[in-house]
Amino acid sequence: MAYRDEKLSEEKVFKDPVHRYVHVRDQVIWDLIGTSEFQRLRRIKQLGTSYTTFHGAEHSRFNHSLGVYEIVRRIINNFEDRPNWNKEERLLCLSAALLHDLGHGPFSHSFEKVFKLDHEAFTQAIILGDTEVNKILSKVEPEFPSKVAEVINKTYENKLVVSLISSQIDADRMDYLQRDAYFTGVSYGHFDMERILRVMRPTEDQVVIKQSGMHAVEDYIMSRYQMYWQVYFHPVTRSAEVILSKILHRAKKMHEEGYAFKLEPKHFLSFFKGEPNLQEYLRLDESVTMYYFQIWMEEDDPILSDLCERFVNRRLFKYIEFNPNQQMNEWMELYKLFNKAGIDPDYYLVVDSSSDLPYDFYRPGEEEERLPIHLLMPNKELRELSRQSDIVESISGKKRTDHKLYFPLDRLEGLSNRSKTKKRIMEILYG
Amino acid sequence: MAYRDEKLSEEKVFKDPVHRYVHVRDQVIWDLIGTSEFQRLRRIKQLGTSYTTFHGAEHSRFNHSLGVYEIVRRIINNFEDRPNWNKEERLLCLSAALLHDLGHGPFSHSFEKVFKLDHEAFTQAIILGDTEVNKILSKVEPEFPSKVAEVINKTYENKLVVSLISSQIDADRMDYLQRDAYFTGVSYGHFDMERILRVMRPTEDQVVIKQSGMHAVEDYIMSRYQMYWQVYFHPVTRSAEVILSKILHRAKKMHEEGYAFKLEPKHFLSFFKGEPNLQEYLRLDESVTMYYFQIWMEEDDPILSDLCERFVNRRLFKYIEFNPNQQMNEWMELYKLFNKAGIDPDYYLVVDSSSDLPYDFYRPGEEEERLPIHLLMPNKELRELSRQSDIVESISGKKRTDHKLYFPLDRLEGLSNRSKTKKRIMEILYG
Amino acid sequence: MAYRDEKLSEEKVFKDPVHRYVHVRDQVIWDLIGTSEFQRLRRIKQLGTSYTTFHGAEHSRFNHSLGVYEIVRRIINNFEDRPNWNKEERLLCLSAALLHDLGHGPFSHSFEKVFKLDHEAFTQAIILGDTEVNKILSKVEPEFPSKVAEVINKTYENKLVVSLISSQIDADRMDYLQRDAYFTGVSYGHFDMERILRVMRPTEDQVVIKQSGMHAVEDYIMSRYQMYWQVYFHPVTRSAEVILSKILHRAKKMHEEGYAFKLEPKHFLSFFKGEPNLQEYLRLDESVTMYYFQIWMEEDDPILSDLCERFVNRRLFKYIEFNPNQQMNEWMELYKLFNKAGIDPDYYLVVDSSSDLPYDFYRPGEEEERLPIHLLMPNKELRELSRQSDIVESISGKKRTDHKLYFPLDRLEGLSNRSKTKKRIMEILYG
Amino acid sequence: MAYRDEKLSEEKVFKDPVHRYVHVRDQVIWDLIGTSEFQRLRRIKQLGTSYTTFHGAEHSRFNHSLGVYEIVRRIINNFEDRPNWNKEERLLCLSAALLHDLGHGPFSHSFEKVFKLDHEAFTQAIILGDTEVNKILSKVEPEFPSKVAEVINKTYENKLVVSLISSQIDADRMDYLQRDAYFTGVSYGHFDMERILRVMRPTEDQVVIKQSGMHAVEDYIMSRYQMYWQVYFHPVTRSAEVILSKILHRAKKMHEEGYAFKLEPKHFLSFFKGEPNLQEYLRLDESVTMYYFQIWMEEDDPILSDLCERFVNRRLFKYIEFNPNQQMNEWMELYKLFNKAGIDPDYYLVVDSSSDLPYDFYRPGEEEERLPIHLLMPNKELRELSRQSDIVESISGKKRTDHKLYFPLDRLEGLSNRSKTKKRIMEILYG
Repeated sequence: MAYRDEKLSEEKVFKDPVHRYVHVRDQVIWDLIGTSEFQRLRRIKQLGTSYTTFHGAEHSRFNHSLGVYEIVRRIINNFEDRPNWNKEERLLCLSAALLHDLGHGPFSHSFEKVFKLDHEAFTQAIILGDTEVNKILSKVEPEFPSKVAEVINKTYENKLVVSLISSQIDADRMDYLQRDAYFTGVSYGHFDMERILRVMRPTEDQVVIKQSGMHAVEDYIMSRYQMYWQVYFHPVTRSAEVILSKILHRAKKMHEEGYAFKLEPKHFLSFFKGEPNLQEYLRLDESVTMYYFQIWMEEDDPILSDLCERFVNRRLFKYIEFNPNQQMNEWMELYKLFNKAGIDPDYYLVVDSSSDLPYDFYRPGEEEERLPIHLLMPNKELRELSRQSDIVESISGKKRTDHKLYFPLDRLEGLSNRSKTKKRIMEILYG
Repeated sequence: MAYRDEKLSEEKVFKDPVHRYVHVRDQVIWDLIGTSEFQRLRRIKQLGTSYTTFHGAEHSRFNHSLGVYEIVRRIINNFEDRPNWNKEERLLCLSAALLHDLGHGPFSHSFEKVFKLDHEAFTQAIILGDTEVNKILSKVEPEFPSKVAEVINKTYENKLVVSLISSQIDADRMDYLQRDAYFTGVSYGHFDMERILRVMRPTEDQVVIKQSGMHAVEDYIMSRYQMYWQVYFHPVTRSAEVILSKILHRAKKMHEEGYAFKLEPKHFLSFFKGEPNLQEYLRLDESVTMYYFQIWMEEDDPILSDLCERFVNRRLFKYIEFNPNQQMNEWMELYKLFNKAGIDPDYYLVVDSSSDLPYDFYRPGEEEERLPIHLLMPNKELRELSRQSDIVESISGKKRTDHKLYFPLDRLEGLSNRSKTKKRIMEILYG
Repeated sequence: MAYRDEKLSEEKVFKDPVHRYVHVRDQVIWDLIGTSEFQRLRRIKQLGTSYTTFHGAEHSRFNHSLGVYEIVRRIINNFEDRPNWNKEERLLCLSAALLHDLGHGPFSHSFEKVFKLDHEAFTQAIILGDTEVNKILSKVEPEFPSKVAEVINKTYENKLVVSLISSQIDADRMDYLQRDAYFTGVSYGHFDMERILRVMRPTEDQVVIKQSGMHAVEDYIMSRYQMYWQVYFHPVTRSAEVILSKILHRAKKMHEEGYAFKLEPKHFLSFFKGEPNLQEYLRLDESVTMYYFQIWMEEDDPILSDLCERFVNRRLFKYIEFNPNQQMNEWMELYKLFNKAGIDPDYYLVVDSSSDLPYDFYRPGEEEERLPIHLLMPNKELRELSRQSDIVESISGKKRTDHKLYFPLDRLEGLSNRSKTKKRIMEILYG
Repeated sequence: MAYRDEKLSEEKVFKDPVHRYVHVRDQVIWDLIGTSEFQRLRRIKQLGTSYTTFHGAEHSRFNHSLGVYEIVRRIINNFEDRPNWNKEERLLCLSAALLHDLGHGPFSHSFEKVFKLDHEAFTQAIILGDTEVNKILSKVEPEFPSKVAEVINKTYENKLVVSLISSQIDADRMDYLQRDAYFTGVSYGHFDMERILRVMRPTEDQVVIKQSGMHAVEDYIMSRYQMYWQVYFHPVTRSAEVILSKILHRAKKMHEEGYAFKLEPKHFLSFFKGEPNLQEYLRLDESVTMYYFQIWMEEDDPILSDLCERFVNRRLFKYIEFNPNQQMNEWMELYKLFNKAGIDPDYYLVVDSSSDLPYDFYRPGEEEERLPIHLLMPNKELRELSRQSDIVESISGKKRTDHKLYFPLDRLEGLSNRSKTKKRIMEILYG
């Protein structure tokens, strides 16, 4: 039997707290899960620094990847006998779903920004490079790795397949909203996925939703909105991320300036240079990162050791609302104050912004462009969701941005009480 | 106001997936949570290697410790106006609950066995030694650290306080059963804790349960029974633990024999010698451990690097049921076979046993001795649970043991097919 | 001890699927629950005819009333030591919460419309009239019944008390959204009530919400929106209600025209006359109503017996979307067609409309006027919710209306196929 | 297309709180659900008088019947390609599952005992008699009604089919345990049904369980055990049932003695005579019963009106533990005391017993005989469950019985204080 059609002698299941069971019957999927590159995702948290806010958020990307696979598996099961659905695409969809996050590194967000990396490029590299994953995919057929890479890269010709994994209501989002809600314990993030799966219909170039399921989709969009602001952009999480970024900046700078680390940061060298190769990238997971941060707590550089101590022991920066258009004077005042007191404001006085577009019907040319959601009307027409739903319309295309100013309160407290801005901050914090 | 009575200006809450919210009002508790020793528990998994079986089991001991604190807080709230309850013990109970697992190290079970450590001794050491935790406790009153240590050590004179944290139905067990069930996603582990809390009554020397709550307690005992066999002793988890132990044994032996590690295993040296001091102990968390295992994958010693590769990439040993009384011949045959093939059976052919006593009314002199559960009858008499409950009686005092033989299937497959035992194993595994 | 202060010797609890436990400690509350007027609520479904759509929706108003009481109890517990809160109002709040729906009759909505009743007036009458409830309330103090009636009637002077039970985020709504979601099994209706209770603050004249809880309130408003359109206004439920109303109309008309019922409808006579007294009102619960409907299936009047048969055996009318502004011609055509075929269109061709205002900041002069929700900002100012929340703003004050045309498909099918409207309907229904 | 193979043009679903969705694709099943006999189950509570203890327990047998159907549907789906499974039996299984409780009347337990009825005989009668259900089944094939009746009656030749609906781990029990737990809100009743369904295997004459699923089955058996004692045999529920039985006895006796009821109890006459025919049986649902009880509150017979008032307004009898072997003297004393005071002890002093056999491997000749549970061992042998499971063994075959004495406390309180037994009872109740 061709490898692509091989089935396990008995179905295997993973006990999953979100989907109850993840079912695997294909030998290929089973083999992919067993690769070192996929197992590595166990050592990378799904939500990066969110565990500093929500102590339950310690789950890994391994978890999430299995979940996305399972959702796609269920969608495809429902599609089996529908028009527009090509059964030949089944294994491709499952593989792409499973592997879509393979290129994520430790604390991706910060690492990518500081070291100018792109996890999507690494996903491609792992699938196409000299890896265990590539060997398995190539056994299916020589072009199979490229196809999987294309699906994940959204360039695959069958857009219906792409939309399962990358649209505004794809398996990726449906899994992470529910999973992150489950592990953090928040009550947002619930929607009736079973109903959404029941009303999904394949068309020629995308998955659409039967109009009767519109309210379930509204509920999903609202979940997404709430999860972004209540969980993903939580200011405490961002505080940890601010510190993390500053650690990476500092270490890089120190390396560039020829600082002699007590322990050579071998795992980081290629990152400092901005050109990690695939093997180096794969070696740097969150265990390794945390190991270095703990080692660096004992480095002589006071900024690096202080920031690492703050991150490891969760002594985070405090924050206040900050309006960059109106409060630059205050920022300037603090900047000088910090400088004068010998507290480097480049590391200790940080403005951080988050913004989100909860749903958008069309944003041509934007990087994060995702397909809008289409409803299948009883008369077989397609209608874009925000044209049918008042609620979705109301938040559609509205970018919301939030700015905050982060700083170590313990240091601020030591500064001159004559500063008006300091006084104002202390009032905000202590009421 | 005395430090012991200081309240936060506004109650703080942690969002907890199991108890919904964990509430903190005492300054002392808040300060303890902020210590580096307590934050360290975030880097130690509650269930060690169980994540290799249940991918959701990635939660840390930090999670569980907050949970135990919260349960004790709720119990004490209910006790407030009851006879036998001394309000002065409140802060002591809360502190002991929060800190009871403070001395756990990475993958405790294996580390303790291999390096002859005792996490309870380290809990005592952290509370009584030169630590942030000790400083905070001492601020309450000079003897407060010793009191907390005594409660955790079960030697505190007020046995009622001890029983909140160490009995067969203590806050510790009630939290971990529910929490581990939640994160693994299994359907065992549920019982009506709210009801149990409602029927708990303080007596002079222990917490007892009103008779009307007997069935809720039966349910709890059954949960415990199921969790042990379905989750805690799962053979796949034990397989990972077998490998982990063998890694530690191997590295220790190599060190003793003067092997020159490519990177000096500084964090491990005192462990190899069997005398880690407190600071060394605190530094060795699971990030650091995983870092070394990854480094060791590239050591020259083929056994160490192979075992590390297996652990990191989850290439576990397979297993079969094994009866040490009847199957020693088979084991001998395999032992020789492995030896002849150059596969060191001391590392690759491992018998592992688990055993559990789901409930016991009285086991004097045993190390793990826990107080039996007493029911408070309507006539105010106390009766030991197993005398009232058929179900509990049926499993009471019955030790169940399970033996398994672990081995790398890939190696076994390479061995001579003439071995009867090999043939038998292959049949068991492939049916 | 004064009756108002009497406590039960031991707290009583009701096992509640929504709030886990309902706790009762006051003798007065316990006595009120035991009255025949309150027990009668067990014989009146919370959701009227919704069980015809959602088979789980068989729960009674008794359920809901206990739930509202429990929520108010928890809110008040949190208020205990806050400024603006007068502990003397405690029993009043609890009593009003428990009794707020006491005047509901069977299938309230239809009965009220057809017989021009007002359940709120009956609530007042039960509290103030010669009833067991009144006796108990009067024992607290002579004016206590009036006070309770005033709170429910929203005329009580302390508006803070009123707002607990009648505002846009009162205990009534919080209970029914969760409870109705639970029993129907829909996934809407969830929000983090525990968080909302934590951020509620008493002010002089209303309960307000700390700004940090805004998102939890948004989630609640969205739940409400979804529950209205997915559950409460479900067209199948409305179909059952249409039939129910027509039964009542028919029976009333027959009585007015002197029809001799086989069994005298004693329980209905005062309703037909439009002047039921309190005792007659209390006797007519849903068991009695269903008894008559079953009896009437055997009456000689073909319309009454047919409609009753449809209701009892759930042979409901079908429906199509209907726009009264544009489709009057179609309606006229059908009307004539029905008439010609001897199918009385007054009973068999029904336009039914539902409309909802999911949230409103201010609607002076409207009957159903409820207080807007105010957020308590960090600077102690109050802000109306829709000014702070984009999502709420987007649906605020927007009335949505839905019209449907109901008819018996089996009758329509028998009519001339030359009718265009019939043809169109058949197409809509059979696609 | 043959009627038996007709599919709905689009699958229909029922939103179910326990199984999330109930799926219907067969026209036959859809038609059966629409019959008046099946719809009648909406007017009969699943748990009879349990709502007097657990206010959530207001769900109907309609609910449960859909649930059993859904579970069988899922089991059969899993069986589809397995050996021993005959696809031709599919519709028969589904129909039997749906209709297995069709013959239940109002408050079955009491009615059956008092009027010597047998709901199973009525189920047979409805399926085989002149009913809508029979018409539909006959359309499938002339012998189909008999086949369905045989499956429910356990006499069908294919015992595998019978075991789906009547064994110790059948769809019936799996539904009611979960459903009754859901609606009452108790935390018992949960087990991993999805896992049990996954490990069920068809054999020639029964469904068996793969040995790897043994613990899930243990959990199910424990749920059953707890539900029986915590919910089904709750003494408050039994108190309501005692009163209900006494009402029926009293009314029957009055009728036999020629009492002239104010309203002739037409619906009851054939029951009083002990020979209700099918049509009369179908007419007597719980609405009608409750109607009569309310009417009878105004009858002149003081016992009937008092008992009805107690039942309708939930003024139940109190109870104490009672050992019929040791406490007959006490019972005699009370009996005389009641008699002397003119309180008829035949109605007001009632001993009620419940007993349960949580699991049994083999009880030949007993009426309620159910098939034991067999495990399918890896070597393909079958083993009876209690031989493999300690826990099940411990409760296997052990009948537990509970006796209670019920009486109206308000009447007892009026009796002479010199009675020792009265004194003892008052002490037990007031402590």
